[in-house]
Amino acid sequence: MSSKEQFIKVFDELVVELRQILTDYKMPAEAIEWYERSLNYNTPGGKLNRGLSVVDTYCILTNQKVTDLDVETYKKVAVLGWCIELLQGFFLVSDDIMDQSKTRRGQPCWYLVEGIGNIAINDSFMLEGAIYVLLKKYFKKDSYYVDLLELFHDVTFQTELGQLLDLTTADEEVVDLDKFSLEKHSFIVIFKTAYYSFYLPVALAMFVAGISDEKDLKQAEDILVPLGEYFQIQDDYLDCFGTPEQIGKIGTDIKDNKCSWVVNQALKLVTPEQRQVLEENYGRKDDVKEAKCKQLFNDLGIEAIYQEYEESIVGELKGKIEAINESSGLKKQVFYTFLNKIYKRSK
Amino acid sequence: MSSKEQFIKVFDELVVELRQILTDYKMPAEAIEWYERSLNYNTPGGKLNRGLSVVDTYCILTNQKVTDLDVETYKKVAVLGWCIELLQGFFLVSDDIMDQSKTRRGQPCWYLVEGIGNIAINDSFMLEGAIYVLLKKYFKKDSYYVDLLELFHDVTFQTELGQLLDLTTADEEVVDLDKFSLEKHSFIVIFKTAYYSFYLPVALAMFVAGISDEKDLKQAEDILVPLGEYFQIQDDYLDCFGTPEQIGKIGTDIKDNKCSWVVNQALKLVTPEQRQVLEENYGRKDDVKEAKCKQLFNDLGIEAIYQEYEESIVGELKGKIEAINESSGLKKQVFYTFLNKIYKRSK
Ligand SMILES: [Mg+2]
Ligand SMILES: [Mg+2]
Ligand SMILES: [Mg+2]
Ligand SMILES: [Mg+2]
Ligand SMILES: [Mg+2]
Ligand SMILES: [Mg+2]
Repeated sequence: MSSKEQFIKVFDELVVELRQILTDYKMPAEAIEWYERSLNYNTPGGKLNRGLSVVDTYCILTNQKVTDLDVETYKKVAVLGWCIELLQGFFLVSDDIMDQSKTRRGQPCWYLVEGIGNIAINDSFMLEGAIYVLLKKYFKKDSYYVDLLELFHDVTFQTELGQLLDLTTADEEVVDLDKFSLEKHSFIVIFKTAYYSFYLPVALAMFVAGISDEKDLKQAEDILVPLGEYFQIQDDYLDCFGTPEQIGKIGTDIKDNKCSWVVNQALKLVTPEQRQVLEENYGRKDDVKEAKCKQLFNDLGIEAIYQEYEESIVGELKGKIEAINESSGLKKQVFYTFLNKIYKRSK
Repeated sequence: MSSKEQFIKVFDELVVELRQILTDYKMPAEAIEWYERSLNYNTPGGKLNRGLSVVDTYCILTNQKVTDLDVETYKKVAVLGWCIELLQGFFLVSDDIMDQSKTRRGQPCWYLVEGIGNIAINDSFMLEGAIYVLLKKYFKKDSYYVDLLELFHDVTFQTELGQLLDLTTADEEVVDLDKFSLEKHSFIVIFKTAYYSFYLPVALAMFVAGISDEKDLKQAEDILVPLGEYFQIQDDYLDCFGTPEQIGKIGTDIKDNKCSWVVNQALKLVTPEQRQVLEENYGRKDDVKEAKCKQLFNDLGIEAIYQEYEESIVGELKGKIEAINESSGLKKQVFYTFLNKIYKRSK
């Protein structure tokens, strides 16, 4: 069984356990079925990088292979991994409604499934709710229980702040490039993505491993937040400059009026005439207009700027990782593992 | 200053404090303004019964008048009161979207305000998020901090369960009386309303007062949950049988296809012919059809059944209150205060 299969097996157990909670509340069968269906439709199905990285980080911190973990320990770190995936499910189900998206992970968005509609909003709440049901069940007796609760509260609120800024900056309907800036892009990316995708899994594993001094957490945050920002900038870059073969999909950020690193970088460099080209062509569902934007990005040399940015941020991150004091048990390898997955990736 | 005015003054302080949290996160000014506007639009404005009852209950439990409380203690219990109102704001903002309601508390629903739309979903999350920001700020050092967190988690999840069952039972568009039953009504009401409106304020006050043995909490729950159910049954009854002068509004449960106690009681008693009348007339936005339902409810003697129910449940509740063991510090008066506000109320 691959480590991903082993991880997914835990989810199936958690669904049974969550069903049981509802059964204990004497919920009618049809409501239990509904919840089970929502859990299964909205939680697995992605790449599970965030969830799996809790397990991987814990193994690095404690010098063990996954196969060495005893059953109870494996379950606990896997539960934390699934709590991140549930949090992501909560965000994605609601984000798709707010963005009026059509598909997610190759299937219709949950709210578009026959018979679901806006009940998906409450379903998203119940994905978030499952996190605290599971934390209580598995961690109530641990000294770091309240730290886990606060970490989830803090990161959830940070992600909601990022979502708020994203929603009020990049309206897909109304193009207003005045709202964009590299500074805002950085804020959105850090809050909407970096905290829950990069800092959260490592911080969770650190609490379970007992390597969770404030100083250690701060070191991790200082590396993982800019690393998460780098990841998203790379994602934005690849959306525009990656080939479909490279990235496994066709980029749509230009047509979707996304507040992407690419357009923000361009806005910093344009002449008034070039800005006019962007004003007239960015954020339109039109192949010709999209091509005009790409031509302008080429003229401005955005690719070279990205390459420079990448070398510089990777150098900076390596410097920070090398400076880590490992005496408390924190390990440079945790951060190199993340960095190596991202650097020069194509998808 | 009335005790309601004093309570509202605390909210204004909390808005300033929540703004400061966002300022510390370096959020752009327009996002801070947005959040402030959502907090002010969606949190006060109701009757504030739930929030005020935390303060009142704490005073009863500790034998003090509100005016006797020191500034810090008053602030802490008032913060808990506002946490309930924030929780309610979270539920109401999202419920109005799910129900596609038009107005709330005499103003347009938040999602219908110009420029808001589906961003209201994320705004509802950030009302819930404020709860944990405030609990951390005011209670982190208290021994019962984790109890408060778990109580909010549990009650939030219970309310979401009630909402799920409500949404899947009473679709305003599709009338299906087969889905209704008194048992389901009881479940919906208890989960969607009783826990957060009746049990939560008392349990919060009990934790602050240090009267929070499992046994005490259980006594409170055993009274407040059926009391909350009684409150909602009375609300359903008044919606149908109260005059507009009595209830301060015009009841719309029949037209709205509500899974109300009244229709469920009727469904238990109808002949097949009478059921047909309900099938053809319930849940239609039509005055004549509404009148036919009311006529049927009269024919079935629902008013008398309600009076009987009320006398019986009030007797039962009084019995439970009288049986309370006050030696731990729990007070019968807490529960009589709630009961007296409800019994024979007209609105
Ligand atoms: Mg989206
Ligand atoms: Mg979005
Ligand atoms: Mg992208
Ligand atoms: Mg409603
Ligand atoms: Mg509703
Ligand atoms: Mg009502």
